[in-house]
Amino acid sequence: MFRPEIKVYDCTIRDGGLMNSSKFSHETVRNVYKACCEAGVDVVELGYKNSKTMFSPEEYGAWRFCEDSDLMKIIDGIDNPKGTRIAVMQDAHKAFAEDVAPKSESPVDIIRVATYVKDIDKAIHLANEAHKKGYETTINIMSVSTAIERELDEALAQVAKETNVSACYIVDSFGALYSEDIDYFVDKFSGILGDINKVGIHCHNQQQLGYANTIAAIIKGVNHLDGALYGFGRAAGNAPTELLIGFLKNPKYNIRPLLDVIGKEIVGLQEQMKWGYSIPYMVGGLLNRHPDAAMKMMKIPDTDPNRCDFARFYDEMAKEDF
Amino acid sequence: MFRPEIKVYDCTIRDGGLMNSSKFSHETVRNVYKACCEAGVDVVELGYKNSKTMFSPEEYGAWRFCEDSDLMKIIDGIDNPKGTRIAVMQDAHKAFAEDVAPKSESPVDIIRVATYVKDIDKAIHLANEAHKKGYETTINIMSVSTAIERELDEALAQVAKETNVSACYIVDSFGALYSEDIDYFVDKFSGILGDINKVGIHCHNQQQLGYANTIAAIIKGVNHLDGALYGFGRAAGNAPTELLIGFLKNPKYNIRPLLDVIGKEIVGLQEQMKWGYSIPYMVGGLLNRHPDAAMKMMKIPDTDPNRCDFARFYDEMAKEDF
Repeated sequence: MFRPEIKVYDCTIRDGGLMNSSKFSHETVRNVYKACCEAGVDVVELGYKNSKTMFSPEEYGAWRFCEDSDLMKIIDGIDNPKGTRIAVMQDAHKAFAEDVAPKSESPVDIIRVATYVKDIDKAIHLANEAHKKGYETTINIMSVSTAIERELDEALAQVAKETNVSACYIVDSFGALYSEDIDYFVDKFSGILGDINKVGIHCHNQQQLGYANTIAAIIKGVNHLDGALYGFGRAAGNAPTELLIGFLKNPKYNIRPLLDVIGKEIVGLQEQMKWGYSIPYMVGGLLNRHPDAAMKMMKIPDTDPNRCDFARFYDEMAKEDF
Repeated sequence: MFRPEIKVYDCTIRDGGLMNSSKFSHETVRNVYKACCEAGVDVVELGYKNSKTMFSPEEYGAWRFCEDSDLMKIIDGIDNPKGTRIAVMQDAHKAFAEDVAPKSESPVDIIRVATYVKDIDKAIHLANEAHKKGYETTINIMSVSTAIERELDEALAQVAKETNVSACYIVDSFGALYSEDIDYFVDKFSGILGDINKVGIHCHNQQQLGYANTIAAIIKGVNHLDGALYGFGRAAGNAPTELLIGFLKNPKYNIRPLLDVIGKEIVGLQEQMKWGYSIPYMVGGLLNRHPDAAMKMMKIPDTDPNRCDFARFYDEMAKEDF
């Protein structure tokens, strides 16, 4: 038995791009897109559509900007029999509405706007401008685990009243939430948005709970689910798309193309970039902290004995608890 | 708030020993034991007490046999202020009661008997013989995800009637269970055993659910929790002890010594043995299979292109579904 309303969004190129400055070859992006089409993944997010005034094109790859001309090269000639749609993400504080062309000129279907609670007005502006141009839109609220509750409530009320988004996401950026927290936030989001069908979930894996928390959200009725191939994403990564597709019973899904592209494209990247569970990330998740410090710890070379001084790292991170 | 009845069992040396034929140096075992004592881990399982007629001492290390003389060397001179106790495991079909000395001559506190449902009578014999010699005992029922249900029910009824075990464990050897399955098995075990305080949980991580499923069991009232440092255990490994200790709020626990010993002893082993999430293990968990085939797949050298042919591996594993 399956719930036909459930949609899986694969964020491999977008969230994985936080680990390599979005420097993927066109071939890698094509292969991921092709595999998602064959697998019946509902939406594939191919990067950020952020501003070149905020990110230097010398330092960042094409998938930080997602020019329509680059996206056209990706999809050219690839069969899409199950109607996989394309999303790109705009950061509320790093993107501009004028960088988005009218829908009729673009292969993008969905503009997803990522925002902290404090930037909700910027996010609503971007989402509404994209909606006017013909796109489906979502707003993804990052770091909900550290949001001030009454500010979050107000932001959600604004999203409900002032936008036409198809979904508003709970984003556990720090991998700090437990299943009971997921239950709590799903109730809050669906209550204020007025519709469980408008709630989305995006989990990180600092405490090995990314996939389990996504299942917890499914059990609560959430239908917009984010994943990434082999969990590829910032720090400990995301809920793995292959696990989600393996769990969900919709017969349109086929896990084989995903396993195939993981073997061909993703395992090698993991061996270089080493996302996934590790003690520095776990400490960050446990203490509800941004993964930046842990990512620095993970970059200490293998030859430096400090790279495994986890107790000291824990003490430094915990120090912020005055 | 914490539940004082909860006991954490660290299985690092025992379950990790399935990845290296139990060949740990005495120094490593001492460091793990010392860290568990300092951290307030309730029980530390230091290996198997299996028969030398079943395992050659040339091929297997000391921690496959756990001679009392070896264990004495481990604990000698180490402070144990929080009363951490020592367990060893006997495999029902690979161990003999006569290898266990009277409790008065041994540093071991708990004999845990691992068994498949089919060997339950052997397990009950071993547990009862150990109990007569003065030990606390448990029976750990492996591979519950493939057990024939009425045979499992009968085995549990025997455990309830014929033994004095302090706990009987749900062991998800194949990492195949979801949280709803955990709920189901906890209800079954507590119902037939007649006491939720007699139910234990031991999860594997093939689908990244080892820790989450352990939390699911805690929510259902289970108090005997197995973990391993950095998840060290067969195939994808176990629920990480450090995550459990981080989650539980009992003030006697201290996570720092665990983080410290993971950095000093365990990370290096992981880099050699590569337990943890990977696609072959995930396929095994998804299809509810023994991890043997996946462990063979994981041993294919990095230079062999077949090592990442995951779609073919999936097809071969799925073939058993006629």
